Amino acid sequence: MTQAPSISAADARTGRDVRLACRAGKHRRQTSGLAPGFVQANLAIMPSAFADDFLRFCQRNPKPCPVLAVSEPGSTNLPDLANDLDIRTDAPGYRIFRDGENRGDVVDLLDVWQDDLVTFALGCSFSFEEALMEGGLGVRHIEQDVNVPMYRSSIPTVAAGPFAGPMVVSMRPFAPADAIRAIQITSRFPGVHGAPVHIGFPQRIGIVDLSQPWQGDAVSIGADELPVFWACGITPQAVALEARLPFFIAHTPGQMLVTDMKNSALAVI
Amino acid sequence: MTQAPSISAADARTGRDVRLACRAGKHRRQTSGLAPGFVQANLAIMPSAFADDFLRFCQRNPKPCPVLAVSEPGSTNLPDLANDLDIRTDAPGYRIFRDGENRGDVVDLLDVWQDDLVTFALGCSFSFEEALMEGGLGVRHIEQDVNVPMYRSSIPTVAAGPFAGPMVVSMRPFAPADAIRAIQITSRFPGVHGAPVHIGFPQRIGIVDLSQPWQGDAVSIGADELPVFWACGITPQAVALEARLPFFIAHTPGQMLVTDMKNSALAVI
Repeated sequence: MTQAPSISAADARTGRDVRLACRAGKHRRQTSGLAPGFVQANLAIMPSAFADDFLRFCQRNPKPCPVLAVSEPGSTNLPDLANDLDIRTDAPGYRIFRDGENRGDVVDLLDVWQDDLVTFALGCSFSFEEALMEGGLGVRHIEQDVNVPMYRSSIPTVAAGPFAGPMVVSMRPFAPADAIRAIQITSRFPGVHGAPVHIGFPQRIGIVDLSQPWQGDAVSIGADELPVFWACGITPQAVALEARLPFFIAHTPGQMLVTDMKNSALAVI
Repeated sequence: MTQAPSISAADARTGRDVRLACRAGKHRRQTSGLAPGFVQANLAIMPSAFADDFLRFCQRNPKPCPVLAVSEPGSTNLPDLANDLDIRTDAPGYRIFRDGENRGDVVDLLDVWQDDLVTFALGCSFSFEEALMEGGLGVRHIEQDVNVPMYRSSIPTVAAGPFAGPMVVSMRPFAPADAIRAIQITSRFPGVHGAPVHIGFPQRIGIVDLSQPWQGDAVSIGADELPVFWACGITPQAVALEARLPFFIAHTPGQMLVTDMKNSALAVI
């Protein structure tokens, strides 16, 4: 199996560095750790016929669906997020869904692009994880070099049109004083999931076994640590698949669109 | 036993109303619920020979010892907190300690006042409890009409001069989502204890049995609630008694000095 190309952190200092590398076929891997300080975004791309309902869904569920930008129908740029940006080529990889079925990953959208497609760029936990680490807190799945564990919770979302379903949550364990600090730090970032939605009792939000995440990888939890749960940016994708849209495009997991916006600009205080 | 006089909430709209009632001998009971919106303060009064060390102790331990104002030696007013204020008469009751021993409560300090006494007014949890209730959260000991449970924790304070000892903490139980909200709300009030110091594992901070508070009353905790612990304003009093000051005056428990300052003015954001 051929190793996918990747740029080094030294060559990926800005969001533009990462986008140009993707556009040139020089980066086809995860974006975690690249362009420190720059906002990375989840992608949700769909025909305009569904975009109004989806935007209403996001408006009603801002914690799992924090909208950073919405494109004009058919437009391939997102001027709110970057000057030199082509949605079709600037993420490392894309995942194509038809009628709610995964049809596999592609490296660009040049062949599948349609003039009615609307792009949603949604906030991602990378932004607040950077703030947590700058605050001196250890983020367990990063320390253990695995993906964050994600769970389907029993917390309902507020439906809009065909979009409905449970909130997906991510979990990070912290010692009590660090959990308090993590709540303070992430409260400053309402545009990227904000404060946690739960702490302490997984079964109360429908999670039976923390060692069995729905997506991502289980992480260790100490006896004196509390599991802390944030609304997860995979929720809008889960909901869009449940709605069985005829055509839907997401980024390949972990391979985000990197913008020119700074994480620090998302802090409200 | 004669019932101590008290003014009604209707007659105690402002801090000045409460102070004048105390000064006139018309109120000798708890101040909880009086003058809504106005800051109530813990008192710590001591000879000036100890005041510098005590102020350093407070500076090093701002969570349990949030200083709202310090008087000039011998001065009986606190112009930072109120215009018309006499420290000797304006709290409902005072507790006298000599050599660390409780010598009983008095209704004013006119007979015991000394020209070298320095008054410290320290923030009180009433201020943030008001904000919690305005935020729609239930505060258990208020709902159960008892005093907040307080515990000697194993969390050390930072010593200064003769002042040293463990932090006393108060506990309020909350369901997880409310606990997160309570952390957010109290973080806005660093001048009145601020964010909690612990959540979830009492034994980790040296508390063996939540049903046996050191001071105050035990409250019920639901199976799906987390005990949340804040630094308590009784800490400076506990520490001053341990230091066995020859002379030390506190307010009678629950009978606070009510100021002209508004609680809302203490919110930093």
